[in-house]
Formats: sequence, C-alpha cells, structure tokens
Amino acid sequence: MARVPIAELEALARRALERAGASPEMAGATAAALVQADAQGLSGHGVSRVPQYSAHLRNGRADGNAVPRVVRERGAAALIDARCGLAYPACALAAAEVVRRARTLGVAFAGVTNSHHSGASAVHLAPVAEAGMIGLMLTNSPAAMPAWGGRTPLFGTNPIAAVFPRRGRDPVVVDLSLSEVARGKIMVAAKAGKPIPPGWALDREGAPTTDAAAALEGSMLPAGGVKGAMLALVVELLCCAVTGARFGFEADSFFTDAGNRPRIGQAFVALDPTALAGDDAYNERLETLLAAMLADPGVRLPGARRRALAAAAASAGVEIPDALLAELRSLAD
Amino acid sequence: MARVPIAELEALARRALERAGASPEMAGATAAALVQADAQGLSGHGVSRVPQYSAHLRNGRADGNAVPRVVRERGAAALIDARCGLAYPACALAAAEVVRRARTLGVAFAGVTNSHHSGASAVHLAPVAEAGMIGLMLTNSPAAMPAWGGRTPLFGTNPIAAVFPRRGRDPVVVDLSLSEVARGKIMVAAKAGKPIPPGWALDREGAPTTDAAAALEGSMLPAGGVKGAMLALVVELLCCAVTGARFGFEADSFFTDAGNRPRIGQAFVALDPTALAGDDAYNERLETLLAAMLADPGVRLPGARRRALAAAAASAGVEIPDALLAELRSLAD
Repeated sequence: MARVPIAELEALARRALERAGASPEMAGATAAALVQADAQGLSGHGVSRVPQYSAHLRNGRADGNAVPRVVRERGAAALIDARCGLAYPACALAAAEVVRRARTLGVAFAGVTNSHHSGASAVHLAPVAEAGMIGLMLTNSPAAMPAWGGRTPLFGTNPIAAVFPRRGRDPVVVDLSLSEVARGKIMVAAKAGKPIPPGWALDREGAPTTDAAAALEGSMLPAGGVKGAMLALVVELLCCAVTGARFGFEADSFFTDAGNRPRIGQAFVALDPTALAGDDAYNERLETLLAAMLADPGVRLPGARRRALAAAAASAGVEIPDALLAELRSLAD
Repeated sequence: MARVPIAELEALARRALERAGASPEMAGATAAALVQADAQGLSGHGVSRVPQYSAHLRNGRADGNAVPRVVRERGAAALIDARCGLAYPACALAAAEVVRRARTLGVAFAGVTNSHHSGASAVHLAPVAEAGMIGLMLTNSPAAMPAWGGRTPLFGTNPIAAVFPRRGRDPVVVDLSLSEVARGKIMVAAKAGKPIPPGWALDREGAPTTDAAAALEGSMLPAGGVKGAMLALVVELLCCAVTGARFGFEADSFFTDAGNRPRIGQAFVALDPTALAGDDAYNERLETLLAAMLADPGVRLPGARRRALAAAAASAGVEIPDALLAELRSLAD
C-alpha cells in the first residue's frame, strides 16, 4: 500500500480523467468526489473507479464533453439532464438547485436523467448540509436484485442517503444500499473460495445459494427481505419514472468496459428546517434524539467513523494499493 | 366472526368515537380510514382501534375537539398542528396541502406535529394518487426498536408508504414498517407459548431472544439490521426534527389507556410527474418497470392484494370478531 496526500491523489485522478476525454470541469468534480470517498474509507467508490470511468470515456459509454443543464422546472422541482456525461457535475448542479429552491420555497426536488455511476451518495449532499438544510439523495443502478418473489435481477442496489445538519458540529450522515451486503463482500469470498451466509444471494436460476461464485452469476438479495425489495422499487421509480431515466434492468454493468450508456437517474431533496418548526426547534429536537442515542452504550452516531477517517486522511493522506497507484500514474501520464 | 357492511361498520365506528368525545369531523375522518384499512385486510389498523381511541378521547390523551391548522408555511412547505386530536383530520389536511402546493410548485412537503396514531399509512395517500401525483408518507411511533448497537427502545417501527398513480388503473402502493416483523406476530407466539425465530427481537436486557414473552418486554429488531435501524432514524428525524413533534421514546404506548399525549409527527410529500419528464414519459417508464416485474413468475405488484380485498369487502362487507362487534355496539350505544 502507498500513502498519498489528498491533493496529489486528486490531481492524479483529474489528469487521468482528462486524458480519457473528460472536460476539466467534469474531471475536477469527479476527482474531488472520488478522493473524498477514499478519505472517508469508502475505497469502493474512490479512485479505484478511475480506470473504469476512463474506459467509459474512451469507448463512449460516458461523454466527456457533456455539460449538465436544467431542462425542465416548475417552482420547487427541476429536471437535470446529465447528457450522458459522468454523473458528478450533474449531481453537483442538482444539489445546488435544491438548495437554491428550498431557500425560498421550503423544500425542493431535483431529478437527474441520462446519468452514470454517482459513487458515494452522501458526498453529493455535503453542500446541502453546509447550507443548513436536510438533504436526501437516491440513485438507481444496474440491476442486481430481483423484485420480491422473482428470480431475475431487476432493481439496482439503489442507495439511500440523508444528511441532517447540526449547529456548530458535523452533520449526521446516513448512507446505505438496499442489498443485504455489498457485492464486494461476495467477490472477496469467491476469490478466497469460501462460502457466503444464506440470505445474501441467489444463483442464476434464482435459487438461494451459499456458493460465492454462483452468487456472482446470480443476484443479490435485498436487505430485510420483502422490505428492502419494496424500497428498491420506490427508489427505482423516484429516480426514473419522474425523470425519464433508464431502470436498472435497462442499464449495463458499470464494472465492464463494454455496454450501453447507462442513462440511469438520481433524485435530490433539500428541506429547510427554518421553513417549518424553525431553526431553534430543529436543533433542540435533533440534539435531544442524538443525546438519547449516545446514552445507550454501544450506539455510535452515523457518519462519525467516516468523519474521523476523513480528518486523519486530510493530514496523513490516503492509503492506495500499489498496483492501483501505478495504474493511475500510467493513465495520467 | 360477523360480516358487517362497510357503511354500517363506518357508522358504528363514527358513533362510538363521537360518544367518546370526538367532533363529528374527527369521528368521520377516523371511522372512514379505519374501515378502509379493515376492507384492505389490515385489521390491526382497522376498527379494532376504536376502543383504544375512545379511551384516549375520554382520558384526555387525545382531544376530541381539536381542529388541525396550518401554523407555518413557506412556498412548497407547510407545518400542520394536529393540536393533540386524533391524527386523521390532520393527515387529511396534510394530504390536501401537499397536493395543492405541488400542483403549482412541482413538489411539496407537509409535516404534522402534536399528532397521534395514524393507522394504515397508505390510506392517507389515496387523495394524492387520485390527484395524479406520487405520494410519500412517513410517521414515527412510540419507541419499539433500539438504535443500532443499543439495548433500549428508542425509535418507533416508523412506517414508510408510497403511492405511484397509473393511468386508468389503480396505483402502485408500497406500505411497510421498519421492524423485522409486526409486534402482533410476537403476541400471537407468546399466547401460543411458541418460540420466535432469531432476529425478531431483544429481551429487556438487550440480548437476542427467541422467547416470545421476553421479547414483548424487550424490543423489536429492525428489518435488515443496521439498515432498518438507520432508516428508522431518518424517519424519526423527518417527522419530528422539522415539525417539533415528539420522538418515539418520548411518547407513551398507544396500546395502553394511561399515558401522555403522544404528540408524534407525520411527514407527507407530493411530487407531480407533469412538472419534470411529463405525464407521457412518467406513464411509459412506470408501465415498463411494472411489465418487467410481472414478466418474472412469482412477482406480484405491491398493493394488488389490498385492492382485491377492498373490492370484495365493498360488496360483501368486512369480517369482524363477534366480541369486537359487541364492544363497538356498546361504545356506540
């Protein structure tokens, strides 16, 4: 493993993406978000994605020159077309739009269409929390889980993220996918030749399996069974039905070079606490619940671990596998 | 069991609630929603609640003369004070407010504070779907589940409901609580002296248990483990932090006569598909996903079973235990 300062890693990722055809704006927004995910310990959504994004920029699955635009709007609602670029500039525009509209209208929704992989969801919500607002973000993703009772992957793992700003402190951050486990855990078991617990996955025939290799050819199971499956349906519809984006089962995997332009969707919500019970009531309520949580031994506030890792990374840099660092240097060269 | 026509059951519930002190408006809104839940097969949120609501109206845990009002608003956001009445008139006002505001502003949010038990969530969203809009509803409830890693009940089972209207057809309806199972299943096992599966509940010391009686004195486990617990936190904050309502751990159980005014919260969202990709795109996308779901044998559309039961109940009436019917008649007399 190599330890790389944040700024150096971000510059390296930016150069690699520009080399692959991303505009300076797209490369900059993408590199900043990826490195932020690495700093928070979310390496699966960090610079490890640069080689894959670069391949998509080169083969046309992502358009490096796309500039996202608000294409429809009504009051508190806006539709953003990512124009088949990488998702990051479109997500940044969506976050800015919901903050601006919620400031005057109390709440706002922005949908993103014709989009691509958006990485660690909560990273996109940082500007919403910084504006003092509650933020929600949803995205669909290439099909990984069947509908409840089904055998064929249909929904993505469809993460849900939320931020709740605190007065004078870092926000509460919730960020979870709706599959029982991350696909990466099954990949690790398959490489090690180990079985996986029941309840994680189905094989390609739709039968429950504890064989990690068979699971990789099949589908992931939703968290909480029917409940996770139903929430994944809700996310799929909120991200695609109102935006015109493609469903998970219409988008090819992000993990392969070949495939279509995924054209998936994201949904952003900002809610200004000052519009309803007011800032003082919001803060009192929030801190009351957090204090009750922390009074129970064993409870940690969500987001605390990511924040501690990010603080450490800001001074000490981020650990990256040597092979990945070499690949990034080669792509940036 | 007795089979009672819908109109007769609704009139009976309305009279019982009026006898207990509910205004005609409150009694009417509450009775209609409870009977609708019975018709949909959700008897746990049906007229079986009338004796409990009547007790709360009589002992002051609910104010039968309360009239809900919009007390704060900004553009697309509104705060509704239920004034410690039964929740139903306040939820009806919230649904009407989000529809009205989303019509001109694309999306709207209404929070309800100083509220009470709101029964079957999706029933409140029927007017949103009838208006051609996507609806979401959240509510917190008296503490039943610990925060992740904790031992003490802190969050309610905090249901999430969503409706997606279809052109010329009944809407897609999702309605789920965030606990692994409903508390009623544990009550049934306890009465039968049977064990419960691991993963359903903790005992009062916070240790996992398969003893149903010990589970009833302890806490419910969230669906999907940490994921359900984190979503329950998000629901708790969306219903209470922006509205000033009480958290689950501050509200006494609905199942007992004695206790405080629960003052819990609800949150409603309406999103008008015509504001973004437009009505045609919304319909094409929605029907495409539903067709893909139904192409997988074994998949049912959510809400279909409730709808079939409601259609049957409309002509044949609702089955009610004899003892409950006798109690309702006595309360209405």
